[in-house]
Formats: sequence, structure tokens, C-alpha cells
Amino acid sequence: MARVVVDVMLKPEILDPQGQAVNRALPRLGFDGIVDVRQGKRFEVELEGPADEAALARVREMAEKLLANTVIEEFRVRVEG
Amino acid sequence: MARVVVDVMLKPEILDPQGQAVNRALPRLGFDGIVDVRQGKRFEVELEGPADEAALARVREMAEKLLANTVIEEFRVRVEG
Repeated sequence: MARVVVDVMLKPEILDPQGQAVNRALPRLGFDGIVDVRQGKRFEVELEGPADEAALARVREMAEKLLANTVIEEFRVRVEG
Repeated sequence: MARVVVDVMLKPEILDPQGQAVNRALPRLGFDGIVDVRQGKRFEVELEGPADEAALARVREMAEKLLANTVIEEFRVRVEG
């Protein structure tokens, strides 16, 4: 069994209100030195078999169809040690 | 400027309805060989300065106070290449 992680983030040119809300709350909470915060999604996908090229291709297809909205989001698939 | 990533996931013993929804949609979409999917959050935090121990300690505090609900969620802070 292998774990593959899919990170989904809004594209850089898309406004990220959740990240902005966090960013604006920071000074109030006494945190400085932080320039920007962006919030996205993380999916942990447990595969039945090994994380070989075929499995990763399937996960990429799944990310494209189901996990990310590729109009406004970008995603990255990676195997987690 | 350095980027620190905070991954926030529900604790393993906490029910994850979003992940389950994804998991149940997979066979319908023709994806098999996936045992489990869990959904969490990913925060990309851009620091003004370097990601040294002091900065990471601050981000950990920030995760604890603002980004994660530590009653039901666990988080991990790491520097991204």
C-alpha cells in the first residue's frame, strides 16, 4: 500500500479570500514577519498497490476530474515517503 | 523570503465526510484500486525572513492558534524547498 498526496491550490492569479482572512488576522494575534498566506486543499490517497507510473497517472486523472477545478486551481501529485 | 507549508489533517480517529464523499465517487467515475481518501488543508506561508528555528516556532504557534483546531485536527509544519 502506498500513499499519494494531491495538493490543490488556487492559481496565483486567483483571489484567495480564505488565505487573506488568515493573513489579516495575524497582526491582531501578534504574529509579524509573514508576507502572505494562501490556503488550499490536501488529499491523502491510499492506493491498494504500489505508486508506480500507471497508478500516478490514474491519480492525476482523478485530480483533474474530481479533486481540482482546473479553471481556477492547480494541483500537484506526489508520493509521500 | 522562505516558504513554509502547514498541512492540517483531521486526526485519524475523526470521521472525514469530505474524504468519504470523494472515496464514494471514485468507482462511479471508473477509478479503482483506491483504498481511502482523506481531505485536509494546506497553507502556504511566505515569511519575510529566513525559515530558521525561531520562525518555524512562530509558524507552529500560529498553526496551533489559528490554522488548526487541535481538538480534532493535527498539523505539520515544514519548509518547502
